[in-house]
Amino acid sequence: MGNPRQSIPLSFTVGHAPSPSEPPPEFVPATVPGAVQLDWARAKEWGPWWYADHFKDYRWMEDRYWTYRAFLPEPLPSEGSLFLVLEGVDYACEVRIDGARIHAHEGANVKAEIPLDGRCKAGSLLEIVVFPAPKSRPQPEDRSQADRSVKPAVSYGWDFHPRLIPLGLWGAATLESRPVRHLLSTDIDLILSDSFEAAAVEFTFEQVEAGLVRFLLFDPDGKAIFERKKDLPEHDRISFGLKKPRLWWPNGLGEPVLYTWTFEILGDSGEILDRAQGRIGFRRLRLVMGEGSWNEPSRFPKSRSAAPMTVEINGKRIFAKGANWVLPDVFPGSLGAQRYREQVDLAADCHFNLLRMWGGSQAPHDAFYDRCDERGILVWQEFPLACNRYPDDQAYLDALDHDSRHLIRRLKPHACLAWWGGGNELFNRWSGMDDQSHALRLLNRNTFEFDRQRPFLATAPLTGMGHGHYRFRDGQTREECWAIFQRSSCTAYSEFGIGSISNLDVLDAFLPEPFRFPPNPGTPWQTHHAFKAWEQDSHLYLPDIAHYWGACASLPELVEKGQRMAADGMRGLFEEARRQKPLASMALAWCFNEPWPTAANCSLVNWPCKPKASLQAVAQALRPILASARIRKYRWSPGEVFDPELWLLSDSPRATGSGRMIATLTLGDLECARLEWSFKSAEPSMNTQGPRLQCLLPAIDVDNLLLSLQVEGHPDWESSWKLPFGPPTPTEAFQPSTNA
Amino acid sequence: MGNPRQSIPLSFTVGHAPSPSEPPPEFVPATVPGAVQLDWARAKEWGPWWYADHFKDYRWMEDRYWTYRAFLPEPLPSEGSLFLVLEGVDYACEVRIDGARIHAHEGANVKAEIPLDGRCKAGSLLEIVVFPAPKSRPQPEDRSQADRSVKPAVSYGWDFHPRLIPLGLWGAATLESRPVRHLLSTDIDLILSDSFEAAAVEFTFEQVEAGLVRFLLFDPDGKAIFERKKDLPEHDRISFGLKKPRLWWPNGLGEPVLYTWTFEILGDSGEILDRAQGRIGFRRLRLVMGEGSWNEPSRFPKSRSAAPMTVEINGKRIFAKGANWVLPDVFPGSLGAQRYREQVDLAADCHFNLLRMWGGSQAPHDAFYDRCDERGILVWQEFPLACNRYPDDQAYLDALDHDSRHLIRRLKPHACLAWWGGGNELFNRWSGMDDQSHALRLLNRNTFEFDRQRPFLATAPLTGMGHGHYRFRDGQTREECWAIFQRSSCTAYSEFGIGSISNLDVLDAFLPEPFRFPPNPGTPWQTHHAFKAWEQDSHLYLPDIAHYWGACASLPELVEKGQRMAADGMRGLFEEARRQKPLASMALAWCFNEPWPTAANCSLVNWPCKPKASLQAVAQALRPILASARIRKYRWSPGEVFDPELWLLSDSPRATGSGRMIATLTLGDLECARLEWSFKSAEPSMNTQGPRLQCLLPAIDVDNLLLSLQVEGHPDWESSWKLPFGPPTPTEAFQPSTNA
Repeated sequence: MGNPRQSIPLSFTVGHAPSPSEPPPEFVPATVPGAVQLDWARAKEWGPWWYADHFKDYRWMEDRYWTYRAFLPEPLPSEGSLFLVLEGVDYACEVRIDGARIHAHEGANVKAEIPLDGRCKAGSLLEIVVFPAPKSRPQPEDRSQADRSVKPAVSYGWDFHPRLIPLGLWGAATLESRPVRHLLSTDIDLILSDSFEAAAVEFTFEQVEAGLVRFLLFDPDGKAIFERKKDLPEHDRISFGLKKPRLWWPNGLGEPVLYTWTFEILGDSGEILDRAQGRIGFRRLRLVMGEGSWNEPSRFPKSRSAAPMTVEINGKRIFAKGANWVLPDVFPGSLGAQRYREQVDLAADCHFNLLRMWGGSQAPHDAFYDRCDERGILVWQEFPLACNRYPDDQAYLDALDHDSRHLIRRLKPHACLAWWGGGNELFNRWSGMDDQSHALRLLNRNTFEFDRQRPFLATAPLTGMGHGHYRFRDGQTREECWAIFQRSSCTAYSEFGIGSISNLDVLDAFLPEPFRFPPNPGTPWQTHHAFKAWEQDSHLYLPDIAHYWGACASLPELVEKGQRMAADGMRGLFEEARRQKPLASMALAWCFNEPWPTAANCSLVNWPCKPKASLQAVAQALRPILASARIRKYRWSPGEVFDPELWLLSDSPRATGSGRMIATLTLGDLECARLEWSFKSAEPSMNTQGPRLQCLLPAIDVDNLLLSLQVEGHPDWESSWKLPFGPPTPTEAFQPSTNA
Repeated sequence: MGNPRQSIPLSFTVGHAPSPSEPPPEFVPATVPGAVQLDWARAKEWGPWWYADHFKDYRWMEDRYWTYRAFLPEPLPSEGSLFLVLEGVDYACEVRIDGARIHAHEGANVKAEIPLDGRCKAGSLLEIVVFPAPKSRPQPEDRSQADRSVKPAVSYGWDFHPRLIPLGLWGAATLESRPVRHLLSTDIDLILSDSFEAAAVEFTFEQVEAGLVRFLLFDPDGKAIFERKKDLPEHDRISFGLKKPRLWWPNGLGEPVLYTWTFEILGDSGEILDRAQGRIGFRRLRLVMGEGSWNEPSRFPKSRSAAPMTVEINGKRIFAKGANWVLPDVFPGSLGAQRYREQVDLAADCHFNLLRMWGGSQAPHDAFYDRCDERGILVWQEFPLACNRYPDDQAYLDALDHDSRHLIRRLKPHACLAWWGGGNELFNRWSGMDDQSHALRLLNRNTFEFDRQRPFLATAPLTGMGHGHYRFRDGQTREECWAIFQRSSCTAYSEFGIGSISNLDVLDAFLPEPFRFPPNPGTPWQTHHAFKAWEQDSHLYLPDIAHYWGACASLPELVEKGQRMAADGMRGLFEEARRQKPLASMALAWCFNEPWPTAANCSLVNWPCKPKASLQAVAQALRPILASARIRKYRWSPGEVFDPELWLLSDSPRATGSGRMIATLTLGDLECARLEWSFKSAEPSMNTQGPRLQCLLPAIDVDNLLLSLQVEGHPDWESSWKLPFGPPTPTEAFQPSTNA
């Protein structure tokens, strides 16, 4: 009884059959975590799944029953209890030992801990039968097939995701030998005092039998600052207070300080029988009403005010900036800590402080949240509902209830976890859910029951929030994205993006040579989302590129122009959202990453982790302090009055100090205008609105105008804008896009 | 052990003291149900509490500890178990037997069933100590003092309610002798099939011991249509199906058909030991998205669509029409079945189908809901939160949790109960709550847990809904109420009203003669809400009356003009809301009734149950089918073009049939214009828009123009409008009102 918990690896093979009762005729080696598709392709020596239209070869796999097989070791551990632990099965499974069914569940977030004592022997055959992808109906073959399951809908086909539905063991599957007296669960709650000078810690645990336990809390330097060692019952709570806890702050606002705890179940002679550990961050996060939000509505009949969307952390209101995160691979099981770390680091280096885990995708592994804890990236975590009408149906609600409880339990300890969201765009026409939908009332209940300190947003957008646009110019109205934002007054811009072409090396990697240039519909350009992904032109938007620069002669030129348009656009949008502070308090790009190599997409980062030009531009726009300009439109012509309004934007926890900004407008070698602005020191995190430069643009034959904003003594705050310049563009010949 | 449940009356006296430990020095006879204030005033032979400023004499009472005393009978029943049953204590109490504390609770909705066995003897002294009115702070002395309790805020002072906080036993307080094997609780759930051709009935019960029980269901004619008699455990469920249940329909749409059930606990020889009974109505009610609601928002950035507010009952979408209901007396304990019946019948006779039980008031006795069941009046039931910021505070949340569970259990069986609401205007500035408020998340959870089939609205207004205006013309903009509605596009007008003077006999009853006329601030006119109740001028609005008709020379003239303005206004608003169907699907007047005799108020009915002119006008506007006109403004002058647009409005479940409407415009004896409109038959519940009459108004010396809308063969559909006519009004001299 002295042996601690032991994890025993299993070696799996996998095969498929048309029904759960038929044994697969062939088995191939399986990688766990992984996906059945990857295993099969590897065994059959297929080329990369992401090349050209290879993904279509995988279509049949979604409807098969996939059986993972492993033999239990000989001999089995002789002491303690034996469990099969499934960290994540995508999506529904049945577990058999020597042919007898011992377990079944559905939901990729469910962690199954299946007792094996008395149900197996050394050398027993373990089978995990993974069911076909859930489908509520055979047709149409799109995301609506996922509307009665908690399988994220993205892989059924999306405007940036091929139809390729991953299946299999996306989390570890191991045999665990546990001491008889082992730990069943832990939970930890932290409540900060109103002054943030003290914290109450409540650690709850459940063990199989009463006995001696030890809880230790270590400060960020590794020093034990609290210890309790005591005989305690099966289910108990250890509560204590902590003075002057070092606070966890999001990126850019302070250090994301983490403490560590350990909990041990001790044997009679003090030996460690079982053990758990975790990290915690002391912070209090609320969603509060933005300044000015209560002033609206002002006239009768009066509706409600906007939903609270300003992040208040540790008593400070911040501007939340970041992006929507989607799973960075079609196959979640292929993602490891390294990829998560790269992605989160990219986001943090870009001055992000918030990522929205979009509900169309699956919640990633712990490694993602661990890195967010470490880098101070807040996570808005949505449940797997997106752009579908999930029904008030008991079987569905039961699955959602079960799956969501597991997800809440898994993610609750993370300091980075900011709030829960019901899912994506559920209160819009294309979803058709509403405030009365039982799925959302259930999620509201579960988060309230099990993680009450965290906010819950039924969906996004809510009242006051805005989603879109997703292109540089509207397809019908031709209104440019900058102008759209300048006339808007959202409290939170929780999605906006600009479709743009991918990096040249990304395109070269998956495009067969005959299709390389020019891009055409009906080729891998289209299956990789350059055409008809959402609108007719999306996400490549050739007509918009042509509108500003004329036709491109080569692929490199197209990449350069297309990425420039998106980069300039996104930079201007982020700056405009910041200028609207404090009424606006959030700006999140759609989207950060992508699950495979797209030909064109709104992503800032190409698959697997390659920054596009937009990412660098967004990083510019999100510097804590920067010189900024409100510019009415993108392209300028001789005879027009160029009239940017100067701003000094600050999200910094420091005052800016007073200073001088010099704006110069240059056309070729000619300095056309110059404006000096002496600004006063702004309070921490306050923007300053400056004067407007005005200049009648002369007729000079150059392709760009250059606006340069310099701040004396602060080269890191400087900004410049290179905008297309030339004669007025001719009437546009191309057909208006139509929304999908 | 053969004795059935017996209720033993108790005879109470009541007295007060400054602390709970001090015995009151004096006791007076108490009426239960009732209120301590009424008991004390009766004993001291005070005049009516509602006369002049008498209510001020009651102020000290809110801070006293009131002790009800009764002696248990001698002898006590010798068999069974003894309980003290408190149906409703307003607001917090402690119960003592012979000086020993045996129970305490807070919340007027809590029904306490306190076991007395072994805790009392014959002749024991029972004391119920009612605590002072809960106050979260001593100042300001207004509704905000109620922001940490579930005591409804209205009695702390409102623009139609004096500061007079009722306290005491507002529900029955009786001794109950129950057989040892008695019934603990029952619950009943009805689920209709999608075709409404079948129903599943699930009756759940809890009894003290297993044994023989009998459940009977009777159809509306009293015929037993289902019986189950069986030995069953302590806690069990009786489930059965019913074919072709007769459906319960709201007023105007069919019969509110009620079935009856009885449940008996039977003794060894089949004798009835204990018994419960109830009525049920088979109906399925949902809140769904109105036609056209999904089309908005249409441009980027896109927010959410409106909240679903269209009532769908038994598969049919209806236009919900009615009013906001407030408790029709300051003292809930004084309200009996007769008054509830009178009020509900008035509403039903006015073609109402929905009452909103406004959260500022207390939920009434069962008799109210019983009558609504019988008359087909749907009830939107709010919890006791209104215009305050109820905190995320554990003590408050515990009280809300407890109180709300009792209210849900009590009201759930009623067919009339349409949906739950969190409270009034909580997502607006003057309340300061929002989607993240724990109180509302808790109520969402409790209603979801215990009454899942009913919708839950966090508050009103929600997105798309509108509240206001509450006067004929806006104080700043002078915009008239008709014009305001005509430019609006709400999905639900869940509050709107027009402040107007009370009936002459009501005024005469409470106004001391010296203050009778003219009305002046600083007199009982003001304490009864004619001045400064909300805005400076509210709710009498003398300047508006003067604007249309000049100064009034007498109180009868003022009553006539003031009530005419409100009646015309409300009639026009209800008709306009109906014209906006289907985008609009609800119109609820603010408010139906009032808790005491006001001097002026938006109420349609004066206290205690006296219809004002508005009620009759609203009844006209809410006829199932009527001729209607969209009229731009109220008062007309020679030289203007009078241009009403004709409509045939229908909420009827029948088609209108084709027909002919004749509109005539008359000035004195002169018929100035005539328009005949041959309309086609409209589908059931569909409006028909007609042509516009146009007439240049001649200079004739009359005070009114008359628009008459006749429909051949349908005298019950006819409408006429008498509108003020005369030379243009001079520039207005009075000062603009300022909002409170």
